[in-house]
Amino acid sequence: MKLVLIPCPISENTASDVLPADVSKYVLLCKHYLVENVRTARRFISELKLGINIEELTFEILDKDSTRSLISSFISKHKQEEYVGVLSEAGCPGIADPGALAVSIAQEMNMEVVPLVGPSSILLALMGSGFSGQNFTFHGYLPIDKDLKAKKINLLAREVEKTGFTHLFIETPFRNNAMLEDLINNSPANLLICIACDVTSPTGFIKTKSAHTWKSEMPDLHKRPCIFLLGQ
Amino acid sequence: MKLVLIPCPISENTASDVLPADVSKYVLLCKHYLVENVRTARRFISELKLGINIEELTFEILDKDSTRSLISSFISKHKQEEYVGVLSEAGCPGIADPGALAVSIAQEMNMEVVPLVGPSSILLALMGSGFSGQNFTFHGYLPIDKDLKAKKINLLAREVEKTGFTHLFIETPFRNNAMLEDLINNSPANLLICIACDVTSPTGFIKTKSAHTWKSEMPDLHKRPCIFLLGQ
Repeated sequence: MKLVLIPCPISENTASDVLPADVSKYVLLCKHYLVENVRTARRFISELKLGINIEELTFEILDKDSTRSLISSFISKHKQEEYVGVLSEAGCPGIADPGALAVSIAQEMNMEVVPLVGPSSILLALMGSGFSGQNFTFHGYLPIDKDLKAKKINLLAREVEKTGFTHLFIETPFRNNAMLEDLINNSPANLLICIACDVTSPTGFIKTKSAHTWKSEMPDLHKRPCIFLLGQ
Repeated sequence: MKLVLIPCPISENTASDVLPADVSKYVLLCKHYLVENVRTARRFISELKLGINIEELTFEILDKDSTRSLISSFISKHKQEEYVGVLSEAGCPGIADPGALAVSIAQEMNMEVVPLVGPSSILLALMGSGFSGQNFTFHGYLPIDKDLKAKKINLLAREVEKTGFTHLFIETPFRNNAMLEDLINNSPANLLICIACDVTSPTGFIKTKSAHTWKSEMPDLHKRPCIFLLGQ
């Protein structure tokens, strides 16, 4: 069996713009899927308009609560299949989402793993930031506690200056505006901050400005998917 | 002007499998390009078979020796154009290659930047490794000096255990076999090492095994593009 990691769009109605032909090719070959959300997965496959009968497919949930033993037994059960697909709610399976568990099991079982090209807001943000793509760290979420968060921002700002590394992180979308305020208030005025918001959507932007400049031009990021980057 | 970051394939003859429709759409709109290598860029655009007359395009070199002032004046000269393209030799402009300089200038001039989806061996390696995609660092190259390299490998191995971060790095392809030996000799036997070799090519593989297991199954990585990953 080959485990196929199938990316899906990160913005509505962009599948035909951002997904390469390999995605449709492998969706036509997969009959069994590990998915973060069954409804989203069915809709995604339908919208590719490949003439697939969704009722003939099987879906098993793979989310943050999935246990290793459950996913192991799903993979074992289907090991005679040629292909099994992994689908996230948005973007690339395994990148800042639960797909890695299935891949880890497949690697342990010495199965072939086939990651397909598709949209990753992290990668697109890094490309669009103008910051170093030679050295970078994705931190996931920063600490929620205000003091710990301020300390972490301070540390990252110093690291940018010292090492030239680019630092990327995300926030729960309803806290994005607060995150930007915290960022500005805890960074040197000349620190460059990039905000990548609604990436691949017509409403999206990727803008790099100093903390000082952002302060006078605060965008509304409330409930919009964003990546924050510090770099030089 | 919008600066369009145009990915190209990382393996031969894969353009139609790995590039989404947006790439062709924007290549049809760009008349002026910043490119890492003119010959590669011309060949890439020709191979898309879009009926473009290559002779009507202009190309300016953007490589590791390009100065900020040279790229600035190229961008200024073309600021009335609707689109200017950036093309690397392989993969995504700005990720482990010189494209970031152009993006940084465009950001400074407050121009819009449009990164397109395409193949990144770093991202595909991370997806395929089964390691954490919640927290990861790309280090570029490790130190060349044998002792410093050994120290760095030791440090990263301890970090994996302590923080769960995934660590990714590359090596000059003719030193890949030596890198794998150094990795195995300086890691705890149970440390998981992923090798992503010739990603997106039919000869490629992404395999995660313990240092101990790799030791008895050494692949030949000589002159093959590889990403090395440590993680859990």
